[in-house]
Amino acid sequence: MIVVKVGGSQGVDLDAVCADVASLVKEGRQLILVHGGSHQTNEVAEKLGHPPQFVTSPSGYTSRRTDRRTLEIFEMVYCGQINKGVVEQLQQHSVNAIGLSGIDGRIWEGVRKKAIRVVQDGKTLIVRDDYTGIVERVNTDLLQPLLNAGYLPVLTPPAISYEGEAINVDGDRAAGATAIAFGAEVLLLLSNVPGLLRDFPDEGSLIQHVPAGEIDAAAEFAEGRMRMKILGAREALEGGVGCVILGDARVEQPVRRTLEGQGTVIGD
Amino acid sequence: MIVVKVGGSQGVDLDAVCADVASLVKEGRQLILVHGGSHQTNEVAEKLGHPPQFVTSPSGYTSRRTDRRTLEIFEMVYCGQINKGVVEQLQQHSVNAIGLSGIDGRIWEGVRKKAIRVVQDGKTLIVRDDYTGIVERVNTDLLQPLLNAGYLPVLTPPAISYEGEAINVDGDRAAGATAIAFGAEVLLLLSNVPGLLRDFPDEGSLIQHVPAGEIDAAAEFAEGRMRMKILGAREALEGGVGCVILGDARVEQPVRRTLEGQGTVIGD
Repeated sequence: MIVVKVGGSQGVDLDAVCADVASLVKEGRQLILVHGGSHQTNEVAEKLGHPPQFVTSPSGYTSRRTDRRTLEIFEMVYCGQINKGVVEQLQQHSVNAIGLSGIDGRIWEGVRKKAIRVVQDGKTLIVRDDYTGIVERVNTDLLQPLLNAGYLPVLTPPAISYEGEAINVDGDRAAGATAIAFGAEVLLLLSNVPGLLRDFPDEGSLIQHVPAGEIDAAAEFAEGRMRMKILGAREALEGGVGCVILGDARVEQPVRRTLEGQGTVIGD
Repeated sequence: MIVVKVGGSQGVDLDAVCADVASLVKEGRQLILVHGGSHQTNEVAEKLGHPPQFVTSPSGYTSRRTDRRTLEIFEMVYCGQINKGVVEQLQQHSVNAIGLSGIDGRIWEGVRKKAIRVVQDGKTLIVRDDYTGIVERVNTDLLQPLLNAGYLPVLTPPAISYEGEAINVDGDRAAGATAIAFGAEVLLLLSNVPGLLRDFPDEGSLIQHVPAGEIDAAAEFAEGRMRMKILGAREALEGGVGCVILGDARVEQPVRRTLEGQGTVIGD
């Protein structure tokens, strides 16, 4: 099993990802695709008069401030526009894709954070009406029969809390939880950079390999969104996933290239 | 099997529909829920600067003009905002709902109309870049195992063409095709009117029963969207569905009331 996560940042070539995923599936590779949608969510949120906001935790992780209206816009873009666009493209490549969010059939279940701590102007504040959380359980009982029947699951946040609330979760970590649940050999995290850069944004400074024991040291180089990817990679490796590769989704055959090790290979 | 279609017109109480569906499912009724989203799609399309347009066919049926951008907005609202909102509500009622569009797993497959004829200012024009069509096949092989495993499918347009294009299809007729495919005893078509009215919009003029042989005569009373419902009802009955009931989704317990015959019962 390969779990491929493709981010929603500007520059990501979803067409190329879909074409590449389709060709791998046709070769008989078992695969689950997870996608994001942050850039388009920002655009739509602006147009709908509810501009995006981002918060930074005391430990330095940045995430989307998700009030109820943001969650609705988030679902419009992730579960509507992007998920169905990806499914349609895969269908045109003759792959029987099925698009599902983490709330459908409780695919991604977890805890909603009752309060989040955010740093603003040097002060730590508590926000209580945020709909974010962490995936703790993956409903493989739903997904495995779909895979067995020849469907390609295309998964997207949000996830669902134990109380049945939709919760925004980090896509990289949700993909990691999915890879763990399926005992995947490899988790690919594709985005709009070539991998972990020693000297961000200099793409010539790509770090090609991070042994499992050196993740903490490598994390020092991670900027912004890359921090969450390194966290997701560490969790996946600790959970038994064979290897995590950070790769570039702005190029032709982005999945194959990453699978061949072009990017940052994390693991031994 | 009961197939419940709830429209997306203004006034429809989706909360009440979800609560009612949940209580029926808990009593052991096997059910599929289909929903629309026309009113909210119009609102979002306006805000996104691509206002809705409607066209009328020479035979008098009104439908949404669906160019590629409209299709995208349509998917945002139907598959994102509304579908996930309904799934979340059902999950909060402890029903394991799974939201799927007709393109997912090719649930609703059919023909895309290569060209549609529309009447404008008394003239008939041909429109070729429209993404609309008709559901001809329902993927029961995907849905039946989900039902057997205790999931409640929540279905929404678009459907998918044989060439893999997303196509806007009428939700009432898609629900009818679904009811036929499952040999449903009953198809409920809920909207923001009490049923077929002899003297639209006088709600006191409700027609309580239309025998199968009198649908043509009854269709004469149908205005606007109701014409498509009558067409969907006729197709469903001809396809072997036991009975079709048009009911009101603006009231408490809208599904139970309609199931008990409050509305317009079509069939013998």
